[in-house]
Amino acid sequence: MNKAVVLLSGGLDSSTALGWALSEGYSVFTLNFDYGQKHSKELKCARDLAKFYKVPYQLVRFSLPWGGSALLEKKLRVPKLRSLKKIGSGEIPITYVPARNTLFLSFALSYAETLGAGAIIIGANAVDYSGYPDCRPQYMKAVQSVAQLGTKRGVEGKKIKILAPLIHLTKREIILLGTKLNVPYPLTWSCYSGGKKPCGACDSCLLRRKGFEESGRADPIY
Amino acid sequence: MNKAVVLLSGGLDSSTALGWALSEGYSVFTLNFDYGQKHSKELKCARDLAKFYKVPYQLVRFSLPWGGSALLEKKLRVPKLRSLKKIGSGEIPITYVPARNTLFLSFALSYAETLGAGAIIIGANAVDYSGYPDCRPQYMKAVQSVAQLGTKRGVEGKKIKILAPLIHLTKREIILLGTKLNVPYPLTWSCYSGGKKPCGACDSCLLRRKGFEESGRADPIY
Repeated sequence: MNKAVVLLSGGLDSSTALGWALSEGYSVFTLNFDYGQKHSKELKCARDLAKFYKVPYQLVRFSLPWGGSALLEKKLRVPKLRSLKKIGSGEIPITYVPARNTLFLSFALSYAETLGAGAIIIGANAVDYSGYPDCRPQYMKAVQSVAQLGTKRGVEGKKIKILAPLIHLTKREIILLGTKLNVPYPLTWSCYSGGKKPCGACDSCLLRRKGFEESGRADPIY
Repeated sequence: MNKAVVLLSGGLDSSTALGWALSEGYSVFTLNFDYGQKHSKELKCARDLAKFYKVPYQLVRFSLPWGGSALLEKKLRVPKLRSLKKIGSGEIPITYVPARNTLFLSFALSYAETLGAGAIIIGANAVDYSGYPDCRPQYMKAVQSVAQLGTKRGVEGKKIKILAPLIHLTKREIILLGTKLNVPYPLTWSCYSGGKKPCGACDSCLLRRKGFEESGRADPIY
């Protein structure tokens, strides 16, 4: 069976990517990161999702001592109740973590090469998203080159494919796909804050709400 | 002054790259990694080098729980006394750490973007080297694309240049350059093992010895 490393953050997109990877027949190894984000709720959700699917769960810890994001620095506040027009304007918000996906994908590359996995699956999305540069197709293509040229596996002529199956889907389409695949959305967490209930006001909550509204379904975590 | 992040491992190449960066007039920020390598001697050397040059020193800790290299796993032995022909054969040895430079450069990218630095300097070398795929020019070019496409800085049209000033130099040429720049080689450490004296037998020691012999100089750490 083809092995794949799936980046799992505990959110809507990565859990759908996990469901997709399993439906495609991959032997999945999930990878989750504690990188100093302000809350650990999403780590618990990622662990619960891996448990639900009975797939290996690997946590990696690192820190970014230089901060540079409202998801890392206490003194920077996460923007609330921005309009969907503003969120989709292409402006990169303060919740952007410099080089986050590059770091996640680098760890995934190291893990994939050690496992002998031929694919890395990331739930990045470039339609209903916050404008982060490291979620776009052209970026994924560049990472693909790094994966081929910078690994022993690549030099040996074997592939490590970077797959972003949701990259061209709207949030509505992601939710419909996940629903079809029976992804356990009650176990997911998208909010940039921790707590018992999502804040409902950060960009991530607003994009999630839009997706559920447009798909005609109720969000099971409310 | 142009800011640059310099990857500093405490070895011959990265210390020469540091000396070069300063001679080029960069305002330097050094970055060093504790990634679970078997000894910490090189971390002390990197710190001492940054102190010598009076430049900021940043240590980042992470682990690679999956191992995959003789530099990480106790049960894997570092090869000794391989012939220089064998070392230069293009075969990737067991000391290769999967995706190590990709990880180092990803952290450097995050740091550079937060600092507003326009360059990342790495002492990688593709002539007298151990055949690691992530030391080659074509790999650096791919990382350059990731840096431009995956960052806010890149999207804004500003550069983050990946510079590998030693990549086409022989070890002899690196040592002659460093000597000209007064790089304090007594503070460096290349051996894959810790201890008081280098083992003299691992690939890294052998390549270093070759370089000093060919440059007609004595290695000050013996």
